Amino acid sequence: MENWLKKRIALSPTKLAVVTPETKLTFRELGDLVSKQMGLLAKLVKKGTHVGVLTNNNLTGYSLILALQQLGCVIVLLNKRLAAPELQYQLADAEVELLIYEDDLALVDLTGLEMVSFSELANQTSEACQGLAEFKPDEVTTIMYTSGTSGRPKGVCQTYNNHLYSALGSALNLGLTTEDNWLCVAPLFHISGLSIMMRSLIYGMTVTLLPKFDADEVMRYLVAADITAISVVPTMLKQLLALGQSSLNPAFRFFLLGGGPIDKPSLEKCQAQGWPVIQSYGMTETASQVVALSFNDAANHLGSAGKPHFFIQLKFASDGEIMLKGPNISPGYYHQALKNQRTFVDGWFKTGDIGSLDQDGYLYVKGRKGDMIISGGENIFPREIEDCYLKLAAVAEIVVAAKEDAKWGQVPVAFIKLKEDISREKLVTYGRKFLAHYKVPKEFYLVTDYPRTASGKIQRYKLLAQLAKLQKIV
Amino acid sequence: MENWLKKRIALSPTKLAVVTPETKLTFRELGDLVSKQMGLLAKLVKKGTHVGVLTNNNLTGYSLILALQQLGCVIVLLNKRLAAPELQYQLADAEVELLIYEDDLALVDLTGLEMVSFSELANQTSEACQGLAEFKPDEVTTIMYTSGTSGRPKGVCQTYNNHLYSALGSALNLGLTTEDNWLCVAPLFHISGLSIMMRSLIYGMTVTLLPKFDADEVMRYLVAADITAISVVPTMLKQLLALGQSSLNPAFRFFLLGGGPIDKPSLEKCQAQGWPVIQSYGMTETASQVVALSFNDAANHLGSAGKPHFFIQLKFASDGEIMLKGPNISPGYYHQALKNQRTFVDGWFKTGDIGSLDQDGYLYVKGRKGDMIISGGENIFPREIEDCYLKLAAVAEIVVAAKEDAKWGQVPVAFIKLKEDISREKLVTYGRKFLAHYKVPKEFYLVTDYPRTASGKIQRYKLLAQLAKLQKIV
Repeated sequence: MENWLKKRIALSPTKLAVVTPETKLTFRELGDLVSKQMGLLAKLVKKGTHVGVLTNNNLTGYSLILALQQLGCVIVLLNKRLAAPELQYQLADAEVELLIYEDDLALVDLTGLEMVSFSELANQTSEACQGLAEFKPDEVTTIMYTSGTSGRPKGVCQTYNNHLYSALGSALNLGLTTEDNWLCVAPLFHISGLSIMMRSLIYGMTVTLLPKFDADEVMRYLVAADITAISVVPTMLKQLLALGQSSLNPAFRFFLLGGGPIDKPSLEKCQAQGWPVIQSYGMTETASQVVALSFNDAANHLGSAGKPHFFIQLKFASDGEIMLKGPNISPGYYHQALKNQRTFVDGWFKTGDIGSLDQDGYLYVKGRKGDMIISGGENIFPREIEDCYLKLAAVAEIVVAAKEDAKWGQVPVAFIKLKEDISREKLVTYGRKFLAHYKVPKEFYLVTDYPRTASGKIQRYKLLAQLAKLQKIV
Repeated sequence: MENWLKKRIALSPTKLAVVTPETKLTFRELGDLVSKQMGLLAKLVKKGTHVGVLTNNNLTGYSLILALQQLGCVIVLLNKRLAAPELQYQLADAEVELLIYEDDLALVDLTGLEMVSFSELANQTSEACQGLAEFKPDEVTTIMYTSGTSGRPKGVCQTYNNHLYSALGSALNLGLTTEDNWLCVAPLFHISGLSIMMRSLIYGMTVTLLPKFDADEVMRYLVAADITAISVVPTMLKQLLALGQSSLNPAFRFFLLGGGPIDKPSLEKCQAQGWPVIQSYGMTETASQVVALSFNDAANHLGSAGKPHFFIQLKFASDGEIMLKGPNISPGYYHQALKNQRTFVDGWFKTGDIGSLDQDGYLYVKGRKGDMIISGGENIFPREIEDCYLKLAAVAEIVVAAKEDAKWGQVPVAFIKLKEDISREKLVTYGRKFLAHYKVPKEFYLVTDYPRTASGKIQRYKLLAQLAKLQKIV
């Protein structure tokens, strides 16, 4: 297969490739910057070297990732919020030989590998070198660690074909204009950010790269720049809604919403003010979205993640677990033969999510299989209970999890951040009005925050472990 | 890989799939019609059966081709203008076991295979059957015979991946809206027509299918229907231009121009009246266009075929022959091991065309390698001479070919259809003003028509064979 960057430079050299708050580069200029980075890297790496990258969202990190890809390195994208021991674990697990890190993300106490900061890299003597002649479709180009809401994080291998078919499947669902401009506020070390970079090469579209999500700043871009698309998670969309500015630039095409479910009122508000929201479902193992609503369906299927993309097959295990097959799907976790054997079965990836299709083939994701509560033989999904209690004025945030119970096996218990005081009795009475009896939490704990993974996902098992220390709402 | 038709029905059941002058079908309705055809075919074929199809452009033929694909047959698409002996040759060469033909295209004297007319097929007893569970990317789904301007036609094998990457490469170049509606006046038995059918399944776009090209009728559709694209050959575009109607429907996106070069004045006229023409280069062996101008380049590179699509690599043999590599390229001619060995070299397809790239990477196709005239060591392309003489008022049409010559090896001679009388002397004088001395034809023959292949391409070798019988212009 053609080398994407080389091909893109040949096809559209003068097209804008990357826009940052400081600068604008065409594909030819981006190519020159990447070549410069390759020159600096030439003595440090060779084809196949595992290179860790620790970067903020900026042009240096962007060009560095592309340069490592050109050199055929396996790029291990590291979450900048990881603590040193977590980072050390991932670096060892992924057999990283060289870590390149942005100066302000310096971490001490890492052992067993070479480390080069961005400023040290810039001072290397440059050496002429060539990018890959071709990309081999099934070769691994990136490894990303899943956040691991339970257990240790696993390194997800992603091939060129994984990224390619992710981009193509998305284009077939969302359409593709040669003038698209995708606003990237997702971190480049997440698949949501990296997939925008890959799409840029494949579609020839512009990426507008911001260092982080700041609602006011993002809104300024959506209104005043020719942004056509943005990937958001629910909290971002809610913050943008809260600004009360509904009119976006006329070229704007859609919000691609991933990273979990959003409440219906927010979706309805978007709909009312004419914001096209494409709900989607995907993960690191599927190289970004693989199920999404289409434009025409977006308005009529609020709450559904949509239909599986053109290249993706979907079925369910007997317990309702969502299984996926297609060229987007990772070949597996790095060095995890046993885990892979259980997770990738006959070409089908077991997602760990429970869901169902409605009669028209739209997917509804109910929750993580591991989060499911089995109480007296009944399956309970925390999300349903959480959604219900969020409508209560006193409740700011709520997480429901399974507590072991001698009589029922498990029972649901709730961990609540309150806006105002409320009694257990009122909470129970409210729940019984809207939920089956067995779904109403047996206990309500008061919390001020939730334990989270580096990528912000709540770790229910940690909540349950500190149960004895928490204050009960009485 | 997902079965495209099944997947498309699942993704967009209520979207319009095919529009003909008589009817409109959604993808679900098209699926039902295809299922019906499959039921009628079930007793006659099995997976892998080679089935010839002889049809006009209509819904029966359209659904029949899709039905045969669903059943995993190898579909041999036959040119309805072939004479019985030509047809007999192709049927035998492709090892066709069953020929399904439209009643009004009935041909006598065919032997060695089963024949079923459309009306006979409609009277078969139906049998329930399933479409393929998956498409195997490298399996051959269609065979089409190249027109063979010299020698016997060869059966070009086309795989699912050939068609898929043709569609995807085209989408990446031309953009893709989920509301595209492609007007198909190209015959379904040509790659230009069939590729529109395949794109429809992959993009989910509507195909508006007309029985044939009629300039007035096509213009009515371009103006009044929501057509966004049409594939045309130069003569069609010229006929449309001649109608003097420049204002098309507002959703119209482009004319995709294939099937050889067009004169610059016509392109300039299109440009002046705001008709977006995407010039392209491709052939049966590449499953449609593989090189095309992009929108942004169309205006500035009149006469170029553009840049190779995203998945396509291009290089030149030492004699300037264009060579192509990529997933669009046919795995080879059916049962032609020797020919394949010469034509498909290390994954590179030798096109038989001579061309060059300009400094910005745009392809200019000079002509067929076999048509090139070598005179006293100089390479001469007929097209350059023909283009020059076409500007002369007296010349209606002209074809230039190589005549053997004792002194120069070969010399160019011209076959002209005249609008008005003109002397040899004036023709020579005119030529010398604009062309190098050795390029001016040594002889000018008067003709009233040209020998052509079934697909309308001029057969120079037949012209040369009848040289002695023709009248010279003196």
